[in-house]
Amino acid sequence: MADRVNSVQPLAIGIDIGGTGTKFGIVDRNANILFSSEISTRGHLEVEGFIDELYLALAPLIEKVGGVERISGIGVGAPNGNYYTGTIEYAPNLPWKGIIPLARLIQDRFGLPVVLTNDANAAAIGEMMYGAAQGMKDFIMITLGTGVGSGIVANGKLIYGHDGFAGELGHTITIPNGRLHEGTGKYGSLESYASATGVRLTALEVLQKSTEDSLLRKVPVAQLDSKYVYDAAIQGDKLAQEIFEFTGQILGLALANFVMFSSPEAIILFGGLTKSGDLILKPTRESMEANLIQVFRNKVKILVSHLKEADAAILGASALVWDMNKELI
Amino acid sequence: MADRVNSVQPLAIGIDIGGTGTKFGIVDRNANILFSSEISTRGHLEVEGFIDELYLALAPLIEKVGGVERISGIGVGAPNGNYYTGTIEYAPNLPWKGIIPLARLIQDRFGLPVVLTNDANAAAIGEMMYGAAQGMKDFIMITLGTGVGSGIVANGKLIYGHDGFAGELGHTITIPNGRLHEGTGKYGSLESYASATGVRLTALEVLQKSTEDSLLRKVPVAQLDSKYVYDAAIQGDKLAQEIFEFTGQILGLALANFVMFSSPEAIILFGGLTKSGDLILKPTRESMEANLIQVFRNKVKILVSHLKEADAAILGASALVWDMNKELI
Repeated sequence: MADRVNSVQPLAIGIDIGGTGTKFGIVDRNANILFSSEISTRGHLEVEGFIDELYLALAPLIEKVGGVERISGIGVGAPNGNYYTGTIEYAPNLPWKGIIPLARLIQDRFGLPVVLTNDANAAAIGEMMYGAAQGMKDFIMITLGTGVGSGIVANGKLIYGHDGFAGELGHTITIPNGRLHEGTGKYGSLESYASATGVRLTALEVLQKSTEDSLLRKVPVAQLDSKYVYDAAIQGDKLAQEIFEFTGQILGLALANFVMFSSPEAIILFGGLTKSGDLILKPTRESMEANLIQVFRNKVKILVSHLKEADAAILGASALVWDMNKELI
Repeated sequence: MADRVNSVQPLAIGIDIGGTGTKFGIVDRNANILFSSEISTRGHLEVEGFIDELYLALAPLIEKVGGVERISGIGVGAPNGNYYTGTIEYAPNLPWKGIIPLARLIQDRFGLPVVLTNDANAAAIGEMMYGAAQGMKDFIMITLGTGVGSGIVANGKLIYGHDGFAGELGHTITIPNGRLHEGTGKYGSLESYASATGVRLTALEVLQKSTEDSLLRKVPVAQLDSKYVYDAAIQGDKLAQEIFEFTGQILGLALANFVMFSSPEAIILFGGLTKSGDLILKPTRESMEANLIQVFRNKVKILVSHLKEADAAILGASALVWDMNKELI
């Protein structure tokens, strides 16, 4: 009977801290989210208050699965999360300023081992454990949301770099002296084009430069976003299609450079922009291939994550626990 | 006494196959090249004849160190060398066309384990084992010669990618729609600017665009190379200094992008262009820092390899053997 108790499947807690909401859940090794919930990230100016609320919300879920003994650990995905130090460092979109020892604070409160990294790295581990990258040892995860995040896996391991901050591909300069990125003050970074924000800016530019008629001209400027551009494009709107074409060309050029760096088996795309399907994927693929030297051509798959967006963040964070214990399990 | 025999230091053979010459030597773990020599790479249209000649040249050296039992293995650095397959694939500058199973052929001839990779990857392992990257787990090696080669180490391991061809940073597009690279047909790759060939092209462009006087105008066009530009620059020649400034700006931009990929502790530069010292290093450092986002700034060292250029290729290739046996020794 003792053996039977030991063989109960281990569980992990995944916590995804976003700018507005913090999602969390208890997950098994087969990507089943047994219980999940969400609290606001903005409710507490002090991180300690936030962690108290998180504990109060999670404690009943932990009881439901049979208590803390069932849980192998806690994985946390957070903006500017540093894997080595377990800290969040100067995250512009979080209410807690400076360097926050988040992993230690959560560990002390829950009495469980905690592993922390940034959200895109967590997403990469999630894809490797549960998603499109299962069985891959070399791939790149790109999240195309409000910004552009990335997680890079080579030799079967996430690349954290010497300081824990590797994989900021959204900030690589794709078009020197190109579009200003308000957040960083740099010109021509990938994120300034291939994010939801970037698509909106491209749309505004295209509408200004062209005199052609477009459905997009009917949208109030303040509301114009990538969703409107998508809706117009599938209705055959020329300017809307041109916006995706332009975005895909720049994204594809950036992807070609990433391929020549780490020669991944696949690039996995995730996030809002991927919902536009071939409108963005076709020009992206074409541009990537056109910018690759011969030895890399027609080799690298561009895949869209098939994890549900609502679940992916929790799954990715929880997968950090299995990754941490890889040698042990 | 048996213990004493076993404790004799193991040795490795390093072979560096270049476009014109093939250098080889027998090396100990402390980077001492005990014996070395060189043969022409161009003497045989069939690779088998080349390997026969290589064997005849190496056999007496192997005898001198006490026979084949002293040798742990053979490391080979070669253009377009594939680590996984041990083949050279479509190397434009070698006399043997198509896919050549070089590692197997050498292994059969010498009766020793062989590990093969491209020359820049071998250089990276050499730096990690004997040079500026000792003790580092995350660094990038950039060779600035006729072309631009690279080897990337992350998590203490060389990144080979899913197909063995990772680390072609010379071919990343730094200036979209920039200068044509004759060899690849691509526009604006790093190699088209930051190689000896690139510096020569920049010099020709600068001389054409400007009407300013310059020592470089006295050099016959066919002979104008980076050495002349260096000589002129240290004599205070404005245009020559401008050429290095321009080259460094582009190299620094590319390095910034590499840093945001793998966040290395250092970037190690090697090869002819580094002889120009601060003429190229200063603008490179400034441009790299200017293009990095905050979290990476003033963190990444740009180091120049201190291995002798004549030895480095053999040392790098031999280091592949120690790297292969890392878990065993």
